[in-house]
Amino acid sequence: VNRGLCELLIAGLLLAVPWMPVTAAEPADSVLQRLLREGLSSTYAHTLLTRLTAEAGLRLSGSPGSQKAITLTQHMMRECGLTSVRVESLMVPCWVRGPVEDAVLVDARGRRGDRLNVCALGGSIATPKEGITGEIVEVRSFEELRALGGEPRGKIVLFNRPMDPSWLNTGTAYGGAVDQRSTGAVEAARAGAVAALVRSVTLALDDVPHTGATHYADSIPPIPIAAVSTRGAEALHAMILQGKKPRLRLRLSCQTLPDVPGANVLGELCGTEKPDEVIVVGGHLDSWDKGKGAHDDGAGCMQAIEALRLLKEIGVKPKRTIRAVMFMNEENGSRGGRAYAEAPGRRTERHIAAIESDGGGFTPRGLGVQGDSTLLRRVLRWQPLFDALGAGTIRSGHGGVDISPIIEHGAAGFGLVVDQHRYFDYHHSANDTIDKVHPRELEMGAVVEALLCYLLANEGI
Amino acid sequence: VNRGLCELLIAGLLLAVPWMPVTAAEPADSVLQRLLREGLSSTYAHTLLTRLTAEAGLRLSGSPGSQKAITLTQHMMRECGLTSVRVESLMVPCWVRGPVEDAVLVDARGRRGDRLNVCALGGSIATPKEGITGEIVEVRSFEELRALGGEPRGKIVLFNRPMDPSWLNTGTAYGGAVDQRSTGAVEAARAGAVAALVRSVTLALDDVPHTGATHYADSIPPIPIAAVSTRGAEALHAMILQGKKPRLRLRLSCQTLPDVPGANVLGELCGTEKPDEVIVVGGHLDSWDKGKGAHDDGAGCMQAIEALRLLKEIGVKPKRTIRAVMFMNEENGSRGGRAYAEAPGRRTERHIAAIESDGGGFTPRGLGVQGDSTLLRRVLRWQPLFDALGAGTIRSGHGGVDISPIIEHGAAGFGLVVDQHRYFDYHHSANDTIDKVHPRELEMGAVVEALLCYLLANEGI
Repeated sequence: VNRGLCELLIAGLLLAVPWMPVTAAEPADSVLQRLLREGLSSTYAHTLLTRLTAEAGLRLSGSPGSQKAITLTQHMMRECGLTSVRVESLMVPCWVRGPVEDAVLVDARGRRGDRLNVCALGGSIATPKEGITGEIVEVRSFEELRALGGEPRGKIVLFNRPMDPSWLNTGTAYGGAVDQRSTGAVEAARAGAVAALVRSVTLALDDVPHTGATHYADSIPPIPIAAVSTRGAEALHAMILQGKKPRLRLRLSCQTLPDVPGANVLGELCGTEKPDEVIVVGGHLDSWDKGKGAHDDGAGCMQAIEALRLLKEIGVKPKRTIRAVMFMNEENGSRGGRAYAEAPGRRTERHIAAIESDGGGFTPRGLGVQGDSTLLRRVLRWQPLFDALGAGTIRSGHGGVDISPIIEHGAAGFGLVVDQHRYFDYHHSANDTIDKVHPRELEMGAVVEALLCYLLANEGI
Repeated sequence: VNRGLCELLIAGLLLAVPWMPVTAAEPADSVLQRLLREGLSSTYAHTLLTRLTAEAGLRLSGSPGSQKAITLTQHMMRECGLTSVRVESLMVPCWVRGPVEDAVLVDARGRRGDRLNVCALGGSIATPKEGITGEIVEVRSFEELRALGGEPRGKIVLFNRPMDPSWLNTGTAYGGAVDQRSTGAVEAARAGAVAALVRSVTLALDDVPHTGATHYADSIPPIPIAAVSTRGAEALHAMILQGKKPRLRLRLSCQTLPDVPGANVLGELCGTEKPDEVIVVGGHLDSWDKGKGAHDDGAGCMQAIEALRLLKEIGVKPKRTIRAVMFMNEENGSRGGRAYAEAPGRRTERHIAAIESDGGGFTPRGLGVQGDSTLLRRVLRWQPLFDALGAGTIRSGHGGVDISPIIEHGAAGFGLVVDQHRYFDYHHSANDTIDKVHPRELEMGAVVEALLCYLLANEGI
């Protein structure tokens, strides 16, 4: 019993330390150490993310999951002691996948063979109910497609250029392949194709299709377009190399419904000296509809809430307001970011900085700073602090899609830069689930964001 | 057909680039880019590691797996074009786990209850065939144990201090808990205990025990000691908090057999100008016997072979000799490292540097430099090159267990520093398997090692 009491006392003392409020005189590296201890001891961001992915699940704009997430994240913010928790409503697009989605090889007599793992790209139109059947024409680029002249007419174009793995930055490799997904339907339709398939934009050789937004042009009639798994794309490539002319029947039942109401979710630590000067930290609450959006971007949302919880937990009373924002509709419209910047509430506020985490919940490596060279120079004063967190790589970079409109209005932009080798393995696929997120790696992103919020709120920029 | 031919031609041209030999005049950042492209395009280290873990499997010193690994890695080295591929024999300890290994709760009347997941620590003696039964005495430190006086006599001591998760560096957290595993048997026996259990030294809350080396003292009679899974340790803790006095029957059938022959495996790129000046790069070929030693330290071994393959692939002809060494017996004796340093072959050689990777096949973050401040300053000249690989954190640090004897003989020491959040989740457990190793993260370690070898071999230190 004595030992038990003793342990309780010691535990009580240890627990008490974070509750000693941070004073203005406390050096930043002491604040950093307290954030780090509190964060790594609790790894609470992972607890939050587990709830988000389990209770709201997939969160495509306009879906029931996205509505649940709007309610749930307000609860979370209140539980974490944030104030002024509220929504700002907006209208969002409502694209639904529908029950039928398949692709099957058919021979010249119409006999069905192997199935391929496909999924409609977000925004695609449906096929007729009986599907679209056509020979596969494989290309690796739009240039190659154009060089084929009329050959693709009446056929199904397969865009099969892999991400180039030799880039150290997988984001660069993604950028070099994603045109096939975003505008492949336009290019294929222009060439006379009746449908298009896109090799999943991932470095993983896997059996799941990776979806993502596709676009149509007003001047070109839309055609259905789907992602095929990388193994499926390799199988088709092998058949074509062997001189076979694979024919495919593609069926998609997706459709775009009228816009529906959605919302951004906001919660704050109110500034003690300059409450109208705001630092935003956020991610996007919507996800694609194949996995649970654990990395993309449940991670960024939960890190923002956790960053504010950490600051509150160690007793920070920020001079300026720090606001967590869960942006809606990054994936297929970016309307949340614009709505936030244009909301009536912004008129009486001055946004000095905005931080976004949308690269997955991996070990943070640094900050991408979006602004002029003076801004970068000022941020580099803090480099040793971030270096102590293993996130000292501070360079010019992109802030994030959701915060772009606020950055355009003058806020300094910050993108959390993370280890990115695994991100596109999961991205936009059924594999983007909570078991792929490591509690410590996720938490460290929240700690880095909390430190940056603290410095911006108390020292300004 | 035309397109096919065209593609073949283009592919041929692209493939040809790495074969253009690296000349002395080629700047280091160009060599770096070629290493990076070749490495990330092939991720061949993962192919090698898949073979090692599948064909040799677990590789505890003296085990059949360790013998297979000695043969297999020689094949791999020859296939990768290394020269002077050979073994250097040594005698290694031979501890075997044996078929019986369990722990079960028993009540006062001897009725058996729940099982706990346990495994003998490496080096432990066996229990009698019928097991050892005793009440559990839980402590969190040796100090707490000593303060109990005679209470542990005839009982089983449970060392149940967790790794402290609040350390950013999990290695530091490991260092703060591993004394329980390495010398717990001595301390428990000194207090009169008949056996000891150790909470697995991991940050993961899981159901698998994590083994590792334990030690006995000549002056204290040895007692059996086993690791219990962290969930098992938590369950025992909860029972004790509730006032229950859990009694356990522990059965272990492990034993130490006479020493058996083992070997270090060596392969080279021979130096063109100073062949007797050697840069060693390596890891340890032995592993624990619960998983497949994928991260610990199959990763380090395969990275060493891959580093030399990459250099050869891009046409580097190093001025000094670069030697990959697979050290035997790091885990329970460190004999390979000592045998290498003392082998007759060393007498005619001068080792200018030694590099070890033994922190798992995770994203490399930098280098730990073991040597004086002059050495560190010289290495920092190269910092921008390593920074371009995301591994620019160059600090004083530990080289590695296996290369310590060579470092003592004057070689500059380098330890590959990697992202370490996940390492102890897998370490020394059944979870240390190939599926936990990401091909790109593993490969990047090989690229960093290859660059360091290149610089050391051609520029010296």
